[in-house]
Amino acid sequence: MPAHSKVAIVGVGLIGGSIGLALRERQLADEVVGVGRRQLSLNQALNRGAISSGTLDLAEGVAGAEVVIVATPVASVGDDVCAALAAAPHEALVTDVGSTKASICLAIEQADTDSSNFVGSHPLAGDHRSGPDFARADLLEGKVVVVTPDDNSSTITIERAKAFWQSLGARVHTMRPDEHDQALATTSHLPHLVASALAATTPLDSLPLAATGWADTTRIAAADPALWTQIFRQNTPDLVAALDRLLEQLHTAREQLQSGDETNLQQFLQQAKRIRDALGN
Amino acid sequence: MPAHSKVAIVGVGLIGGSIGLALRERQLADEVVGVGRRQLSLNQALNRGAISSGTLDLAEGVAGAEVVIVATPVASVGDDVCAALAAAPHEALVTDVGSTKASICLAIEQADTDSSNFVGSHPLAGDHRSGPDFARADLLEGKVVVVTPDDNSSTITIERAKAFWQSLGARVHTMRPDEHDQALATTSHLPHLVASALAATTPLDSLPLAATGWADTTRIAAADPALWTQIFRQNTPDLVAALDRLLEQLHTAREQLQSGDETNLQQFLQQAKRIRDALGN
Repeated sequence: MPAHSKVAIVGVGLIGGSIGLALRERQLADEVVGVGRRQLSLNQALNRGAISSGTLDLAEGVAGAEVVIVATPVASVGDDVCAALAAAPHEALVTDVGSTKASICLAIEQADTDSSNFVGSHPLAGDHRSGPDFARADLLEGKVVVVTPDDNSSTITIERAKAFWQSLGARVHTMRPDEHDQALATTSHLPHLVASALAATTPLDSLPLAATGWADTTRIAAADPALWTQIFRQNTPDLVAALDRLLEQLHTAREQLQSGDETNLQQFLQQAKRIRDALGN
Repeated sequence: MPAHSKVAIVGVGLIGGSIGLALRERQLADEVVGVGRRQLSLNQALNRGAISSGTLDLAEGVAGAEVVIVATPVASVGDDVCAALAAAPHEALVTDVGSTKASICLAIEQADTDSSNFVGSHPLAGDHRSGPDFARADLLEGKVVVVTPDDNSSTITIERAKAFWQSLGARVHTMRPDEHDQALATTSHLPHLVASALAATTPLDSLPLAATGWADTTRIAAADPALWTQIFRQNTPDLVAALDRLLEQLHTAREQLQSGDETNLQQFLQQAKRIRDALGN
């Protein structure tokens, strides 16, 4: 017997679609209902087998659901979660997959709805491509999902969210929304900003001389500019703080280069290698 | 009949070893002699089948060679090329694979040897791992090799170098050493510096929250710090100029973030995406 009778996925893009595919492949839900803003995305998700049915009406889609996953762009998550909390059963687990957490949780808190059955989530999985066509059933397998309880999340909600992500093959980390945003500013948002800056300052006529190093370093600059503008806007102070640490490091390296200080330059590269090696490939 | 009776490879690391493997797999040389500084590397290269014999003596190794490839770290290339020019037949094609070109060519010019049979080369292929154990026969296949003639290189030398790299499956671009260094500062050396700065400013305890984006953006920070210190030192003015363009872009993005200027922030990300998309995956 599947774990859930009905799961609703609001936003059937890359992440939402991948969650749907995983739920269906693992036979974890009788019904996976996709909620979309455009029929085209719903049709794509239906064709991929990521959802069993689709609707443009959020209230209709989440009615009677045991689990609601809000997987819309971060600027919409707050409103969509509030709408889901209002329309879904009070027993439903409601969570989201937004890349920032503090401003989403604040928006939900300020909406003055009962949000004890909501907890934020952030699957650290994705792709520089977006849309249901790139969804994959194994997108979350072995990946980290950060679950970010705040004072409103009930213990049972937190436990259910953890169990949900684990059932899709993910590993769960738990931390507060503001801790999450501070860490992700360094591990995700800053790399994105820097990859974009590297790409933007490369003359097009130098591209024939770009090899694997440039390709790797700039890959995420191909992601959706509108989505990332929203993410940057929702985590500006933490991102600026992370950027300032990077700028300080780059200015130090610049001085070492100009003064021919090979010892410290090499020590800096050695320290960077140590941290990179700690991650593995 | 193979194209060459004897090819000497001075320095049997990742690139030198890969050239040896390709020559042998494509049956382009009767004999591929490896010249090393340590017997250990020569033994590794012999075990990989990258060379048919090895020697610690450069003059012995290049004696009678038709082609000499100097594949030692950039700080040694100038000296090794001069030694090869002195010991190899005057008809031998001598080239190198260093990541910088102007300072190498200058060192050779200043050495006051006849260097008409030398032309610099830079295969845009590699790996963040080094050593003959990671050598691959197909490392250069479909990759770009930049051949960098200066006023001393004879036309026949340039043509022979182009033909040599093409025989290994590479595509050849030709440009002057200083043009090469300026372009590579942007497409290779700056991405490396920035990848290292990103890794170096990431707290170790945030690594569990690092996903594909961080991994891609910082991958080349795992490369050999000593090698890259040499590369940075040999191309400092071009690298600093490229870094300054990046710093300007990052400072602009910082202002846009702080002032909430979403329009220009998104335009910057869009411009970056356009350039990244022009490369492909």
